[in-house]
Amino acid sequence: MSLITEIAHNAAQAAKTLALLSTPQKDAVLRGMAGALRASMDEIIRANQQDLEAARENQLPAAMVDRLTLTPERIEDMAQGIETIIELPDPVGTTRELGSRPNGIEIRKMRVPLGVVCMIYEARPNVTADAGALCFKSGNGVILRGGKEALQSSLAIAKVLHGVLETHSLPTALISVIPDPDRSLMMELMQQKDYIDLIIPRGGEGLIQFVTQNSTVPVIQHFKGVCHLYVDKDADLDKALQLLLNGKTQRTGVCNALEGLIVHQDIAEQFLPQAAQALQQRGVKINADQASAGYFDNATVLSDDAFGEEYLSLEIAVKQVADFSAAVAHIDRFGSHHTEVICTQDMQTAELFQRSVDASVVMVNASSRFSDGGQLGLGAEIGIATTKLHAYGPMGLESLTTEKYLVNGEGQIRD
Amino acid sequence: MSLITEIAHNAAQAAKTLALLSTPQKDAVLRGMAGALRASMDEIIRANQQDLEAARENQLPAAMVDRLTLTPERIEDMAQGIETIIELPDPVGTTRELGSRPNGIEIRKMRVPLGVVCMIYEARPNVTADAGALCFKSGNGVILRGGKEALQSSLAIAKVLHGVLETHSLPTALISVIPDPDRSLMMELMQQKDYIDLIIPRGGEGLIQFVTQNSTVPVIQHFKGVCHLYVDKDADLDKALQLLLNGKTQRTGVCNALEGLIVHQDIAEQFLPQAAQALQQRGVKINADQASAGYFDNATVLSDDAFGEEYLSLEIAVKQVADFSAAVAHIDRFGSHHTEVICTQDMQTAELFQRSVDASVVMVNASSRFSDGGQLGLGAEIGIATTKLHAYGPMGLESLTTEKYLVNGEGQIRD
Repeated sequence: MSLITEIAHNAAQAAKTLALLSTPQKDAVLRGMAGALRASMDEIIRANQQDLEAARENQLPAAMVDRLTLTPERIEDMAQGIETIIELPDPVGTTRELGSRPNGIEIRKMRVPLGVVCMIYEARPNVTADAGALCFKSGNGVILRGGKEALQSSLAIAKVLHGVLETHSLPTALISVIPDPDRSLMMELMQQKDYIDLIIPRGGEGLIQFVTQNSTVPVIQHFKGVCHLYVDKDADLDKALQLLLNGKTQRTGVCNALEGLIVHQDIAEQFLPQAAQALQQRGVKINADQASAGYFDNATVLSDDAFGEEYLSLEIAVKQVADFSAAVAHIDRFGSHHTEVICTQDMQTAELFQRSVDASVVMVNASSRFSDGGQLGLGAEIGIATTKLHAYGPMGLESLTTEKYLVNGEGQIRD
Repeated sequence: MSLITEIAHNAAQAAKTLALLSTPQKDAVLRGMAGALRASMDEIIRANQQDLEAARENQLPAAMVDRLTLTPERIEDMAQGIETIIELPDPVGTTRELGSRPNGIEIRKMRVPLGVVCMIYEARPNVTADAGALCFKSGNGVILRGGKEALQSSLAIAKVLHGVLETHSLPTALISVIPDPDRSLMMELMQQKDYIDLIIPRGGEGLIQFVTQNSTVPVIQHFKGVCHLYVDKDADLDKALQLLLNGKTQRTGVCNALEGLIVHQDIAEQFLPQAAQALQQRGVKINADQASAGYFDNATVLSDDAFGEEYLSLEIAVKQVADFSAAVAHIDRFGSHHTEVICTQDMQTAELFQRSVDASVVMVNASSRFSDGGQLGLGAEIGIATTKLHAYGPMGLESLTTEKYLVNGEGQIRD
């Protein structure tokens, strides 16, 4: 058995034990993990120093070095993240009634873990603890394949978690770190459909396409975030301005930042000058349709086909529409099924928007930046799906489970 | 645009209209479809004659000719099947509360259609009406790619359904039949991931493997049904005998038939002679472990590794176990995650079985033959999944939908 097959096989075997633990048993282990991370800060930071030295030698970009860096505060955040997961309701074992049939058999559904979840991600050592804890609470084994940049940190964190598993007589294979970031091993990992139930890639579009095309294990796909704010004719314009600035400028390199502003023509004359002033003050580059460009200094005029770009920077596209339907049509054409926001005081319009727009998160009068597992109350987020199978939108514990049918009878047979 | 891309594109466009229809609007169309099928029996049967003549010329096996054959009764069954679907609750648009966050934003989830579902199946003309109606009620466009053996019948049924769609000013692309069963067109169909959200293959394991390996669209996998009945030491043996006979002999060529009998050693001496007599009376061939073989005339002795076969005929494997855990371990090793049954009067044992066994349907004191969408109250079944992503077990309307997040605020922004 190859190393990868052995890791996958052992994770699947270990997951069978975990599937039957009670919530208090699992929470006790998680409490142990949070405590052990705090108690092992020095070791973790020492291992992290090795990764950081290699990063400097390899001249990694500053942003990546920042994501790599672990401090006592960041390790405390990981521990608190696990404590948040302890507080979350455990979906495993919950049942719902589907009623009984005329012959008297009773039908229910019960939530059960998926089995083994594999995370493929880049240089974020905190994923080891976050994903480890989320998968543990939802009863799944996890296989972590992070980038080589964070390998020593990940192994050190995993060692701490393994110590806790051993204290509770649980197999360490429940949280497995691939110790060698070689790409051919990753290819082998993606063929382990007999042992792995789901792969969640987190990273750039290239990584996600690569995994989708090469994996025989089902993959959660998260392509890009082209999120719009539609300012309706019945919007509260003060709120609209706040939602625009927060969505575009609070943080720019993230998938839930705004990339497009859509404005109803009836309020364009009133709203666009305010928007122009505020955006320009914050250095936001403007791309606008012909009708809107005049409100901005130095706006680049966009042709009808040029919308839909994911800028991930201080840049936005502005579009004026004749009515509600045109706004929905624009989103339908250029959105990425991630997050779409309407600002309106008309609750009928708001409801119609929430029904009509095909996106994983559809918001009324709230910032697109809330489209995140933590902000929506799911605990640390394990991923976000922009395709519809199995999960759509931010994924929490429930997304790491499935439902089986329970049928109870008194000896009924079929005629 | 190729024929296949055009069909897929048109179905996706049409599905957007359908996603917004109300339940009464959809039910009115479905009522029209049931009526139109009844009114068009003669045309449908005439088209079916063409398929049957070709079937005779090509000397298709009698079982396939039987599945192909449409009679007034079978068309009436299709119409009644649609009426059953009208009675089912519409999952689309239903919401559930996930609570509010400390900042006051309210989080809900709303069920929405998947978009476009593609069925790939063999010679069953009734799938055209069943799948057409289930996908319509759940708000999805459907693309039907059936075997060439049933093509004229499928086209005739689709024509009837299209007439009803047109009466209601709806696009006929909502129910699209691939008019040419060429395999290269099927390959092209499986690459339409921009327009098709889910492929459900129904047929033999070869077809399902072929689709799984070649499709870039997500696929619902249903491999095989190796279902067991475990007769516990606390079983009501009269019930156990009924469940055994019904599961094994009521119909044999189906995936929810029993293929294995597991007997607790404490009741083996009492139960196995009864089982032997009843099974042998019905001509069931017995394969048994060393411990059980002596109870049967002419049993083939199976080695420990030889269990787990899907017989699909009057044949069964019999295994004696020392205790409950050994029964669960046997199912874990040889089951196919389809349906597993325990017969016991001890409700604690029953509950432990339902928790411990990893199968899409886990039953207590009920026949495995109930593991079917219709029998479980889901209406005509669209498929059954033995893998865990998105759906697990018989799939009804809900499995043809997904949930999006709705977030409602009053202008909240993120710090």
